[in-house]
Amino acid sequence: MLEVKTPEEVLRLIEKKFKPLGQTESVPLSAAMGRVLSEPITAQEYVPDFDRSTVDGYACRAADTFGCSDAIPAILNLAGEVLMGQGADFALSRDSCVYVPTGGAIPKGADCAVMLEYTEDYGDGTVGIMKPGAPGMNLIFRGDDVFPGKEILPAGRVLTAQDIGALAAIGRISVPVARRVKVGVISTGDELVPPNKTPGPGQVRDVNSPLLTAMLEAFGAEAVSYGIVVDDEALLRRKMQDAARDCDAVILSGGSSVGVKDAACRIIESMGELLLHGIAIKPGKPTILGKAGNKPLIGLPGHPVAACFVAQLFVLPLLGRLMGRKREEYTVTAELTESLGANHGREQINACHLRREGGKLMAAPIRSKSGLITQLAGADGYFIISRDCEGLPKGAQVHVYLY
Amino acid sequence: MLEVKTPEEVLRLIEKKFKPLGQTESVPLSAAMGRVLSEPITAQEYVPDFDRSTVDGYACRAADTFGCSDAIPAILNLAGEVLMGQGADFALSRDSCVYVPTGGAIPKGADCAVMLEYTEDYGDGTVGIMKPGAPGMNLIFRGDDVFPGKEILPAGRVLTAQDIGALAAIGRISVPVARRVKVGVISTGDELVPPNKTPGPGQVRDVNSPLLTAMLEAFGAEAVSYGIVVDDEALLRRKMQDAARDCDAVILSGGSSVGVKDAACRIIESMGELLLHGIAIKPGKPTILGKAGNKPLIGLPGHPVAACFVAQLFVLPLLGRLMGRKREEYTVTAELTESLGANHGREQINACHLRREGGKLMAAPIRSKSGLITQLAGADGYFIISRDCEGLPKGAQVHVYLY
Repeated sequence: MLEVKTPEEVLRLIEKKFKPLGQTESVPLSAAMGRVLSEPITAQEYVPDFDRSTVDGYACRAADTFGCSDAIPAILNLAGEVLMGQGADFALSRDSCVYVPTGGAIPKGADCAVMLEYTEDYGDGTVGIMKPGAPGMNLIFRGDDVFPGKEILPAGRVLTAQDIGALAAIGRISVPVARRVKVGVISTGDELVPPNKTPGPGQVRDVNSPLLTAMLEAFGAEAVSYGIVVDDEALLRRKMQDAARDCDAVILSGGSSVGVKDAACRIIESMGELLLHGIAIKPGKPTILGKAGNKPLIGLPGHPVAACFVAQLFVLPLLGRLMGRKREEYTVTAELTESLGANHGREQINACHLRREGGKLMAAPIRSKSGLITQLAGADGYFIISRDCEGLPKGAQVHVYLY
Repeated sequence: MLEVKTPEEVLRLIEKKFKPLGQTESVPLSAAMGRVLSEPITAQEYVPDFDRSTVDGYACRAADTFGCSDAIPAILNLAGEVLMGQGADFALSRDSCVYVPTGGAIPKGADCAVMLEYTEDYGDGTVGIMKPGAPGMNLIFRGDDVFPGKEILPAGRVLTAQDIGALAAIGRISVPVARRVKVGVISTGDELVPPNKTPGPGQVRDVNSPLLTAMLEAFGAEAVSYGIVVDDEALLRRKMQDAARDCDAVILSGGSSVGVKDAACRIIESMGELLLHGIAIKPGKPTILGKAGNKPLIGLPGHPVAACFVAQLFVLPLLGRLMGRKREEYTVTAELTESLGANHGREQINACHLRREGGKLMAAPIRSKSGLITQLAGADGYFIISRDCEGLPKGAQVHVYLY
């Protein structure tokens, strides 16, 4: 029998036992948001591709303006104007200047731009410069931002809107991303009815399928529902095998009774290898993990709150591993609104509401007797009380993972 | 001329000048993730709808077990077994018990469940109870979690996977949500070419359209691209009018030159009311806000980094306002890796990379001379240096808004 593992051991086990699928596809930039980059992106060109002004003003040679002031302006010949979107493919002669708009190209010979407010156009073909320039002043040079060969984004990056903008800037209109992992979702339990049915005596609605599906899709995986399976080992085995054949991973949730849990273990063992039976967290202990080839077979607790926590803490990192996803989850720090007891020997996970009180962020733990809706609906995130902690006092700082 | 406003003034202006659209639609639960709830959700039923056990064990009357122990078990008559998904529509007589699985229904008369490990089935129709029960022990009563009339989720909530699960539990298979706001996106500038074109001399690719589109879609808005418009006031006016007719809001970005900015002001003023011209932030000062009816007309700076910050800080809250969205953005606290100067008189916004060093979260500010790709690509978020701060020392705590 496998022993119960700590959360750290489970995460190490996932790293060790599962490899990225390594399957990629090319998507247009407009569909790349949130996808996992499958290879680093390297610029092929210069950005900007020409020397540009960062101000509206006059491009000139800095040396021609040295020593000028309000009282004694440097008088330069106005050699013309650079238009937006046009090149400036001429050389500026000495003691001359050209008008350039913000973002406009700078002619050869010019080495600075003087802001309009420090100049005066005398209207006779000359311009007075009241403030000396310095070489490089108000200019961006070709390739200052990016040059061929510069790495823009690393493999494994989850693309943001900002990344999309940067990719557009270097002309990448399609990007190589990891294929979405396809995850089969099965709910099991004689007591389950689909959400659109009214439960009869002793029945409850299936919460895990819609919850996990929404979570998986938001994470960038593809969820495939295999429906509700009654508590019958042969049927369950067939569904698990179907799902494992068609998907990259299978999540079975439910089976709160000992019999179903044992059946799930036997099925997973028969399909490949049983890696884990039990995680030292509360709630979420009765979690099973196995593999068939490189395909994870996951048995989640039936209770939706436990299933939700285990999915957040272990299933998403596992699916991220399969997609080669590199992204850390960050926490926000909040102050506990009331004291909270904890069990010894197991990490305890608590959902909470966040609210602001006089500039301070407060975390109100959600308490409920094995509750369901109350623990899920309206929660803003969760925090973890470590294994060796007997509880937290009111006012303690907690680190909240946001939903 | 309107004066430059502080960020707080701008946010107050948005609250004051724009009202939620109040247009809702019903979507299936499977499409509700991330949508904004348009009315509070109230339960219509009890969850659970029957008294349930939270353990595998025996349901009985606690009073029948008082005083029992390992040495002197209480001997109860085994009256049968409750099956998962079946009712327990009978009354338990005194000194009796029934086997119940976790989640199983509890018969009338029983007021506790004793865990299997504290019992022994003698096989002769009796069961020994080694640990006394107490009324309510290991039970969830009908409606403990939710009852008719209880508010589950408030209006304005951005639905999470957990909320989806809770809605499934109470049988809500469709939910009323705010219609996505439709936002017209226009880029202007003679220097702009679409991302799929190679820029000629003096030209750059349009970054703002793909960046803003990705950001808007991720926020739950619908972006409609009106392409790139050259710097021609009549043309720009026509595009703005087209977009304002078909959309709920219009974002014009670009126009780094003074002439274009003035034209944008004139156009917005002629279409309705000019509310704002300039925000005291860096970068992002040359921002324009107007309205035509209840439709925001927004002029963003042309520089993509400035446009991005202004969109995050002001445009998304404005669109959220139109959708009645109530969601706070939280920050993660990190330690600055190097000192950073700041301007007086304007809030300064800085993009940064986050990384972990020995358990501490570090924020490395991204510096670049009016850079573009370097400021966007791979950034994890941004932080704000307040108006009156002259700079931050290395090691200072910053509050990072995540991308």
